[in-house]
Amino acid sequence: MNRDWLAEALRLDKADPLRELREAFHLNEGEVYLDGNSLGALPRVVADELNTAVAQQWGQRQIRSWNEGWIELPQRTGDQIAPLLGANAGEVICADSVSVNLFKLTAASLWANPERTTIVSVKDMFPTDLYIAQGIAGLLGEAKCQLKLIHIDELDQLDSQTNLVILSQVNFRSGEAYDVGKLTRAIHEAGAKVVWDVSHSAGVLPINVKQHEVDFVVGCGYKFLNGGPGAPAFMYVRPQLLETLQQPLSGWMGHSDPFAFETQYRPAQGRDRLLAGTPNILSLTALHSALTIYQDLNLRDVFTKAQQLASWFVEILDNHPALKECQALKPPARGAQVSFQHDHAFAITQVLIERGIICDFREPNLARFGFAPLYVSFSDVTQAALTLAEVLVDGSYLQKQYQISQKVT
Amino acid sequence: MNRDWLAEALRLDKADPLRELREAFHLNEGEVYLDGNSLGALPRVVADELNTAVAQQWGQRQIRSWNEGWIELPQRTGDQIAPLLGANAGEVICADSVSVNLFKLTAASLWANPERTTIVSVKDMFPTDLYIAQGIAGLLGEAKCQLKLIHIDELDQLDSQTNLVILSQVNFRSGEAYDVGKLTRAIHEAGAKVVWDVSHSAGVLPINVKQHEVDFVVGCGYKFLNGGPGAPAFMYVRPQLLETLQQPLSGWMGHSDPFAFETQYRPAQGRDRLLAGTPNILSLTALHSALTIYQDLNLRDVFTKAQQLASWFVEILDNHPALKECQALKPPARGAQVSFQHDHAFAITQVLIERGIICDFREPNLARFGFAPLYVSFSDVTQAALTLAEVLVDGSYLQKQYQISQKVT
Repeated sequence: MNRDWLAEALRLDKADPLRELREAFHLNEGEVYLDGNSLGALPRVVADELNTAVAQQWGQRQIRSWNEGWIELPQRTGDQIAPLLGANAGEVICADSVSVNLFKLTAASLWANPERTTIVSVKDMFPTDLYIAQGIAGLLGEAKCQLKLIHIDELDQLDSQTNLVILSQVNFRSGEAYDVGKLTRAIHEAGAKVVWDVSHSAGVLPINVKQHEVDFVVGCGYKFLNGGPGAPAFMYVRPQLLETLQQPLSGWMGHSDPFAFETQYRPAQGRDRLLAGTPNILSLTALHSALTIYQDLNLRDVFTKAQQLASWFVEILDNHPALKECQALKPPARGAQVSFQHDHAFAITQVLIERGIICDFREPNLARFGFAPLYVSFSDVTQAALTLAEVLVDGSYLQKQYQISQKVT
Repeated sequence: MNRDWLAEALRLDKADPLRELREAFHLNEGEVYLDGNSLGALPRVVADELNTAVAQQWGQRQIRSWNEGWIELPQRTGDQIAPLLGANAGEVICADSVSVNLFKLTAASLWANPERTTIVSVKDMFPTDLYIAQGIAGLLGEAKCQLKLIHIDELDQLDSQTNLVILSQVNFRSGEAYDVGKLTRAIHEAGAKVVWDVSHSAGVLPINVKQHEVDFVVGCGYKFLNGGPGAPAFMYVRPQLLETLQQPLSGWMGHSDPFAFETQYRPAQGRDRLLAGTPNILSLTALHSALTIYQDLNLRDVFTKAQQLASWFVEILDNHPALKECQALKPPARGAQVSFQHDHAFAITQVLIERGIICDFREPNLARFGFAPLYVSFSDVTQAALTLAEVLVDGSYLQKQYQISQKVT
């Protein structure tokens, strides 16, 4: 007997402690937005806060606004993110992009331990992480830095040349979530350090940096944190490492006394030394206001719901009477994303988008569905899964030619 | 006989071809804003454009907006800036901050010519330029990079180890404008390259990169370009150098095919290889809309008016019957800024601000006045100069204690 998925979903929605948060976002009528793993939906509060920043702070207070709050915005926004990582206030800072921040931390790690010259990563990590490591290796030259790509299962075989391992907590293609505790321990046992890129997991999956003694974290603000397109990224550094950290993007905002305009760089105390140039206030304002939504939440509810939404999607596909096999990837653990493997994955995503299910595609054959727990309901997920089943059954994706087009993750 | 400065100013305003542009900006009633060299005033168009970007592009079109214009925003905004530098469309790109971009270009220059290991700058250039050079030298080590600070007059004595000279077109303290043609020639004669930081001059002073065969330019978007607090910065690279340029902040946006998610970095053709991470769309939108004001202007009018405003300020102070000596610095050439030297400069700026003349202070003894030609009138300048004279004469600045507070330049 077929289950009544929609009726079940309504019951799940009713029991969802986060159900009212949906109202805090702008969502399009008639669409289900499952691309929050790429660009988070617009929190309604952002428009007002940004208007205030523009009209009042910039327009009226002008230069005076730097002394009336702007200058601390990288720190205050970092403090909002800290609980999501299991870090303390004062330990996270927002600035620049993930790419730029990875450069800072990778260079800092090589600088601190020049006798260890190998940077290790895994082949299917997010490419910018690999590209930045290649940039550093190229600049420093073979003698000072080599890049090595391994399989994730080989992290217990690191050699004594390994300086730093760069890993994503969640694989952007498969949606697999790696075991931060286990892998961090293995890396530490080899005497190396780790930077976890939490771009695809921040806000939906805990990382518990304290418990796991994580060395470095980078992440972006525009996915599940809903900070807007190209929102500033963030960094965490283990306090013991921060005291002596030297990073080469030593711009004036990382100086101990930026407004003394000294000739010699002297790094600021603590996280401030991770800054480079002038903070981007309008983008930071959007991210800061988006993060107020997280302020009074029980984070366990958020993390749990993300898992439940993803599982619910897979469960419907697994048990759908018209589908022979479920082609959703089933990694041992996942973030808030399910990837669906199909030779016609791109065409399927395009038909789904036409039918109001907003998802995306990744080369070569993956349709991705992101389950942002702050604004996606179980009913949404049900509608998406049933529409996907319908498309797979009716074969409409075979009837059209699509040209694969670009999309920013 | 005393001149009637205000009457003269009104005649100058009437003859000003840019006089109506003032209406395009938000300016506070009862204030004269002379801090556009630090943070440009708010162009009225920005609020609307930003609202559209938030409500429609982000809110409604969501992820689809990347394919509907966002992805080209760094290039389109660069194209708006190109004419201000005397560059062609396709040659300027917006991204990151001045600090980060200086790192890219300095590292690229060392990478291209590793046998030349000295980076030269001048002691009183803007500090972030020096700090970034120190960061690179520290990361690469003494054998690969040394930093040398010289006097601006010594640029004709560069040795054959000099790789790159980092210079500001306008000195942020004194307001002095350096001779780009003469200095670039001297640097080229030594076989070295130059990066001109035009943060304090872009939009108010020509640089003519083609005529002077300038190698590299960096500049910020938040001063005379009015792009908003911490607006993205920009870069220009001489086309011949760009073809083989390698820069180590090789993030995915600089990849030849970012959405192929390849494992190996391959630099994009042309200026795109200067990009690192995901572009910051909200801040770029503000800068892009602010730059539309420059679109149909005769740039000669803009550059001429900037000089006239600054000269007018000095002329009033020079000829004021109650002032014994004019303490305005008079460099051989200047940008759109006049610096006024006084032992009580900080207190003077605070009294001026109380009286509605918004200016700023730089250690140790300079009050700075910026003359943004798009929105400052000759009447404004007159009011500022007469108020300054009044403050100097009545000595009110001596009656208060001020604590010097921070301000972002």
